[in-house]
Amino acid sequence: MSAESLIADLKSLAEFGRRAEGGWYRPAYSEIERAAHDWLAGRMGAAGLDVRLDGAGNLIGRLGATESQADTAALLVGSHIDTVPGGGWLDGAFGVMAGLDVARRLSASNAPRRRPFEVVAFRDEEGRFGPLTGSRAMTGGLDPATVPDLQDATGQRLAALLPGMGLTVEGFAGARRSARDIAGYVEIHIEQGPVLAAQGARIGVVTAIVGQARFALRFVGRPDHAGTTPMTLRADAFAAAAEFAVAFRRAVLERGEGVAVGTIGIVQVEPGAGNVVPGETRLRAEIRDVDGTRLAALAAEVPRLAAVAARAVGVAAEVETLHRTAPAPMNEALATMIEDAARQRNLAAIRLPSGAGHDAQNFAALVPTAMIFVPSVGGRSHCPEETTDEADLAAGVDVLEAVVRRLLAR
Amino acid sequence: MSAESLIADLKSLAEFGRRAEGGWYRPAYSEIERAAHDWLAGRMGAAGLDVRLDGAGNLIGRLGATESQADTAALLVGSHIDTVPGGGWLDGAFGVMAGLDVARRLSASNAPRRRPFEVVAFRDEEGRFGPLTGSRAMTGGLDPATVPDLQDATGQRLAALLPGMGLTVEGFAGARRSARDIAGYVEIHIEQGPVLAAQGARIGVVTAIVGQARFALRFVGRPDHAGTTPMTLRADAFAAAAEFAVAFRRAVLERGEGVAVGTIGIVQVEPGAGNVVPGETRLRAEIRDVDGTRLAALAAEVPRLAAVAARAVGVAAEVETLHRTAPAPMNEALATMIEDAARQRNLAAIRLPSGAGHDAQNFAALVPTAMIFVPSVGGRSHCPEETTDEADLAAGVDVLEAVVRRLLAR
Repeated sequence: MSAESLIADLKSLAEFGRRAEGGWYRPAYSEIERAAHDWLAGRMGAAGLDVRLDGAGNLIGRLGATESQADTAALLVGSHIDTVPGGGWLDGAFGVMAGLDVARRLSASNAPRRRPFEVVAFRDEEGRFGPLTGSRAMTGGLDPATVPDLQDATGQRLAALLPGMGLTVEGFAGARRSARDIAGYVEIHIEQGPVLAAQGARIGVVTAIVGQARFALRFVGRPDHAGTTPMTLRADAFAAAAEFAVAFRRAVLERGEGVAVGTIGIVQVEPGAGNVVPGETRLRAEIRDVDGTRLAALAAEVPRLAAVAARAVGVAAEVETLHRTAPAPMNEALATMIEDAARQRNLAAIRLPSGAGHDAQNFAALVPTAMIFVPSVGGRSHCPEETTDEADLAAGVDVLEAVVRRLLAR
Repeated sequence: MSAESLIADLKSLAEFGRRAEGGWYRPAYSEIERAAHDWLAGRMGAAGLDVRLDGAGNLIGRLGATESQADTAALLVGSHIDTVPGGGWLDGAFGVMAGLDVARRLSASNAPRRRPFEVVAFRDEEGRFGPLTGSRAMTGGLDPATVPDLQDATGQRLAALLPGMGLTVEGFAGARRSARDIAGYVEIHIEQGPVLAAQGARIGVVTAIVGQARFALRFVGRPDHAGTTPMTLRADAFAAAAEFAVAFRRAVLERGEGVAVGTIGIVQVEPGAGNVVPGETRLRAEIRDVDGTRLAALAAEVPRLAAVAARAVGVAAEVETLHRTAPAPMNEALATMIEDAARQRNLAAIRLPSGAGHDAQNFAALVPTAMIFVPSVGGRSHCPEETTDEADLAAGVDVLEAVVRRLLAR
């Protein structure tokens, strides 16, 4: 089918949070995200959905079942419309608008629906107040008692923003839903990577969402004069950090079996003068893997390799685990259903893991869960250049529609 | 002899440029340094010296010869009173005040002087407008034609400051002096390192001032998503920088023969997000060595090792040489004279190179040149904690006096 209405919706949404310097910024629970949610609620209503905001601020548009003996547990299609600073127009937004487009197609057809269908825009997928805040609140991964303490990187408290969104701290607990209430979860998303394009595939069938282990490392030496301190009397914190970085990358390459990835993206060297031996170096390192056992083994290497590097150079090392999530395997029956739908439409499909986190990972342990990927041009995402060919967006929505129709029919 | 007057002078000088947040800051050619120079000119005059400011702003206090058949070439003792931001009370200042103290002792004695004696406070040793500006102007290492273009890191032009100092751009050429005019140069300085203390020595006899090679390195890869980009499809600029850093340190350790030092003090990783593969990493690396051949060989390794690291990781490397100076060997006869003077006073003395640059290095090719070091407590310098035991300061001035007396007598 044509993706005309989908593209139009995406372009309308792109009017919210567009930055003069390029890209978009719709921070979770901000005024601009609230305005986008209000607009989206209007679009959901216009499509004939029953619209409500849950206690965590997730926006839900519901299409009831058509059968009298219907199952009360709903099929959910969701994603998010918040963005990173300078993000693109598709990440998250595509999944929500695709769900809305499917809802419109369901309304327009005579096919019976054995269960309710819901389109959900989760709040704070990008993790302003913690990872995947809205979907964790719905699936039980967020302790409501912690909500009063949540704050963003600038110290802004979530609690202070809630009244402006028509929300309360106390309301968060009410967002939680159980498997009795949800029959399954399907999310469509841009790949955000180069794999589909590299393999000439138009549809990606996600096998699992990677687990993650994130670390803060601190190497502490002594800031000496770079001219007057012999090499053997130094405690060079960056020399140790470099030894660690080389060993860390080698471990991921050698033991990651081509699947695990490891990244050191933040490096801070103090005092940061050309003629002073670095007295302190701080790194952020992360590992992602779909295999929980391999992830755990690689994560265990981090403090060990840091200690080895520190000892070799004569400095101290501290390693703090910042974040740890287990891999979330997707449902095999749903994956096969996606492959079938792609095949029927002559769309080349491949299986691949998702290296990025998604709201889907919070549903995987609760209900049958699936993710569909469409190609990202140049593998780019979270940047103004992020885009996908319109034909690929349209193909993705068609596959999503086919899967949703099968799940509502049975 | 007692160092009472020396300590009093150092404490008086410490009233200029003392910062509320700790340490001192007397930038070259600034109002506060000019005020310190004015005060110092007064102290020189009170000691009976003929005082003048040369064309580059170097302050010179001169004590004439006492013999009728005297040599007209003067013996110079010098250092500087400008400081780095947040520097200490002794670096540079000690050498100037020690020279002034020796001049007072010479005036007070009946010993004949066969040549003039000069105490010099060089301007801009710390290199606000380029390395060792004042002593380079005196020794011919600064092209006067470049003075109109000199500016500091903030873009402040030297030329705009000169009128306030009673100086002119045209006057710089007149600061130059030849070997006919200078008989020798002796500088006393705090070690700024840990070697004297580690070896229980109270006097350091400098063998040579190191040559330096400074580099700016840039590794350029591609900023990809840390979750969705497989290891083999990455171009990780920091991974290459870390490989280089490890190889660079190893080369200095293995080929530096315990003398050369190599430092990477500045590291900048872009974009600097935990979940983005580094697209660019910039390093500053420097090598110092007293052996010019070894320095050249190690410096030649820098672009080679950068290319090897870049190729191994699949990124590009650019290496720019920022600065290159040759080692400046000290005069052997003067070094022996310093050792004799220390031995006569039962002061343990060792020979060592100077890893830091000093005004003395500009005189080494011109006239017999020597440097005396006194211990730095904890090896600290260029920081508020920089200090030396008063007994060590006094012992250093006594050795300096003895060397000066021998050089004026012969």
